[in-house]
Amino acid sequence: MSEKAFQDHYPEDLAHCYGCGRLNPQGHQIKSYWDGEETVCRFTPAPHHTAMPGFVYGGLIASLIDCHSTGTASAAAYRAENRDMDSEPTLRYVTGALHVDYLRPTPIGVLLELRSTVKEIKGRKVVVSTTVTAEGKVCARGEVVAVRMPDSMIADRK
Amino acid sequence: MSEKAFQDHYPEDLAHCYGCGRLNPQGHQIKSYWDGEETVCRFTPAPHHTAMPGFVYGGLIASLIDCHSTGTASAAAYRAENRDMDSEPTLRYVTGALHVDYLRPTPIGVLLELRSTVKEIKGRKVVVSTTVTAEGKVCARGEVVAVRMPDSMIADRK
Repeated sequence: MSEKAFQDHYPEDLAHCYGCGRLNPQGHQIKSYWDGEETVCRFTPAPHHTAMPGFVYGGLIASLIDCHSTGTASAAAYRAENRDMDSEPTLRYVTGALHVDYLRPTPIGVLLELRSTVKEIKGRKVVVSTTVTAEGKVCARGEVVAVRMPDSMIADRK
Repeated sequence: MSEKAFQDHYPEDLAHCYGCGRLNPQGHQIKSYWDGEETVCRFTPAPHHTAMPGFVYGGLIASLIDCHSTGTASAAAYRAENRDMDSEPTLRYVTGALHVDYLRPTPIGVLLELRSTVKEIKGRKVVVSTTVTAEGKVCARGEVVAVRMPDSMIADRK
């Protein structure tokens, strides 16, 4: 597993995301890493991230899948170009589509592990599949179609 | 439009959801209402609910769609039985599957309007379609398969 999270390579002006921005003190600040050909993210929801007593809020699970997947897409795009994530040009991804199947209620108060694989990487699109596991059981599966950040958004940064 | 939100009818022990629980002070506390055959929810994201500067976080949009849809499913189930939402037995729904297509970046700092229709209501399942509109433009579309809360979860309440 590499030492620096994908999200810690994001340029400062793209590091305020509520899900994964290291500069958003009110956000979730998730961290994603390579683990061989997979990527992994571990996160323990806070007590207030509940759906009903005892279970994790599904919108939080969707959020974790979302940010871990766009981070995975970015890391995979750099890896495909054999480049370090700090190098220019910046390859950042936004979510085109998000799908989550909730397979069983996810217990709250324990560590969740997200594991993703890159199903497809082609042109500006990366498709990422994810499992969310708690206490050894897969509680949710996700699929994200991530799209390279539009030039219009990049232009807005400058 | 009715005066009391769907979520304000939820029993107290099911009112702590991070997305829509009126008793979760750290949550979004969204409110959903009937508007004819559609349901509507209006929400203005906070400045920290950002993806990148200027735009709303996709995970928040997924969360709004999620809770507004399960609320819509519940309201539709009561309406199908011609019952008030305060009456027993309680009909609460959880998310079986969530799909979101992000059609364009959603501007932050403005009111978002979610409008939903019930596509299907059959047995324990309700399928809800939603649009998310900002400044007159549809920014995202969602579809949720909501499932009547499993008896095991209801049993845990007692």
